[in-house]
Amino acid sequence: MTADFTGHGGRLEAARRLYGGGDWLDLSTGINPCPWPFARAAQPDWAHLPDPAAIGGLEAAAAGSFGIDPALCCAVPGSEIALRLLARLLALPGRHVPPCYGTHADAFSDSRPATMGQGDRAAFVIANPNNPDGRIAEPATLLAWQDRIAAAGGWLLVDEAYAETVPAISLAPQVAADRRLVVLRSFGKFFGLAGVRLGFVIAPPSVLARLRRQLGDWPVSAAAVAFGTAAYRDAAWMKEARADIDRRAAALDAVLARHGLSPRGGCPLFRLVETAEAPALFDRLARHAILTRPFAEAPHWLRFGVPMERDLDRVDAALGHG
Amino acid sequence: MTADFTGHGGRLEAARRLYGGGDWLDLSTGINPCPWPFARAAQPDWAHLPDPAAIGGLEAAAAGSFGIDPALCCAVPGSEIALRLLARLLALPGRHVPPCYGTHADAFSDSRPATMGQGDRAAFVIANPNNPDGRIAEPATLLAWQDRIAAAGGWLLVDEAYAETVPAISLAPQVAADRRLVVLRSFGKFFGLAGVRLGFVIAPPSVLARLRRQLGDWPVSAAAVAFGTAAYRDAAWMKEARADIDRRAAALDAVLARHGLSPRGGCPLFRLVETAEAPALFDRLARHAILTRPFAEAPHWLRFGVPMERDLDRVDAALGHG
Repeated sequence: MTADFTGHGGRLEAARRLYGGGDWLDLSTGINPCPWPFARAAQPDWAHLPDPAAIGGLEAAAAGSFGIDPALCCAVPGSEIALRLLARLLALPGRHVPPCYGTHADAFSDSRPATMGQGDRAAFVIANPNNPDGRIAEPATLLAWQDRIAAAGGWLLVDEAYAETVPAISLAPQVAADRRLVVLRSFGKFFGLAGVRLGFVIAPPSVLARLRRQLGDWPVSAAAVAFGTAAYRDAAWMKEARADIDRRAAALDAVLARHGLSPRGGCPLFRLVETAEAPALFDRLARHAILTRPFAEAPHWLRFGVPMERDLDRVDAALGHG
Repeated sequence: MTADFTGHGGRLEAARRLYGGGDWLDLSTGINPCPWPFARAAQPDWAHLPDPAAIGGLEAAAAGSFGIDPALCCAVPGSEIALRLLARLLALPGRHVPPCYGTHADAFSDSRPATMGQGDRAAFVIANPNNPDGRIAEPATLLAWQDRIAAAGGWLLVDEAYAETVPAISLAPQVAADRRLVVLRSFGKFFGLAGVRLGFVIAPPSVLARLRRQLGDWPVSAAAVAFGTAAYRDAAWMKEARADIDRRAAALDAVLARHGLSPRGGCPLFRLVETAEAPALFDRLARHAILTRPFAEAPHWLRFGVPMERDLDRVDAALGHG
């Protein structure tokens, strides 16, 4: 029943086919349901190829927000494709740290599970915060690990797709020309605009030059340029969004707790629940047109995206039905 | 003076820095200046990841327009990045057929010039119609060449970025599981929406499966899905646009002829002029805020994108100045 939904979140069409139409509430992803108001940006210039100067402006705006040198920051059409390109480009065996986001293993032709701290000549990928369990590794811990990996001739890739809600943990400011460290950031999750397809790779210039050559001269769309440039400069919205997201996560926790569910982990954009009832719960919620995220390799898990407060009653009611 | 402009067209910011601001007329690309009216499409769903079913719908709409099996058609974020990915994926030495679009050589780590008809174990890339000289190869000629290349264990890649104005020459319907032939199509040029970043790779299933793995699950943006799906179904607009583009090309030819310039080649979206005065002509036009496309390797060439009829007087006046 849940096989269509364990690859990635966001499979609403598949959910409609299985459970019927209606007004679905999609909690299967960790995308902020309250997007940055893109009407604040200039209209995307659809008619022209993105100008290199405009892409440079986007990278400068993002780098300013990340607190890093713009020369180390490359815009990409989604952090997922970037990780797949990096896997090819580094030409090292892959290592992923379970539990992990599916792409972390899939990006490499033959990735093996690893434990944090392990060091060998490989490309180690870890998400921080982790997806789906929200595990957070301290920057000092990751840097010590990176030292060990670098000594063996490997690379550490830190996927910070969910770091925007906890910016203090970011390793982006530690990226340097002489350090075998790459950081990936995502635009769509925190800003709630996943349809834009925009992310950033923060890496030493030698890696970025090769990545840029793979991407070509127009790596991102006119919407990515227009929305991304304005959004990363909107510090006031970002500050308010972080507070809103934290408040909504606490409100979801309260609803889950009323039904005997306490998260085994999570970050402010999603919660991971562990219960033997997870498959039944997925099914019950889906019959109420609420899509959550099951996991093939961990059938006792169910991940909830954090909804808007106005949708919490719907979640509460669906959980209450037998 | 022209060094900034010989890599790719569309460098308006660089032109403004060198020649000053004002209302530039960009004739440096072959992008249709009369775009498909994207207000006809549904609003892009920026808030969600593109659903696989929606991407499948986009590929089906494009395949319908190309007259091919949708199973052989993969949406990509621009045909330029697709060619670079294919170069890696086929893992063969590159061969380009001069004169050619810069990416055709650059996509491969070490591409060598070739002549049409040559067959060895390599990935041969040719544009049809060609850019910048508009050379057209007949489908039968290309298929005979493809036979020779395939016999040697190579691949033929046909970049049909400008084929939308002359659809009868497309090799897309010849792509098949057992043929070492790949066709690339571009959305942005004919539909005048290059900022969307959308193209298609038409290839045997074995190649598409590997390409899809490189691209990941969300290869294109919400705008690519919304605009592309509706535009490729808008056969009436496409028919009218072909006639309009042909008429505008003839009108540009008349203006060029008045100034003693006759194209040495071209396709309905651009004209290539050959004259010893090309560098001076580029400079004169730029001083009138009209950007054309010079070529480092062929300083006697100048490529003109075909403008809207209302802009022809401006081109005429600038060409008339000494």
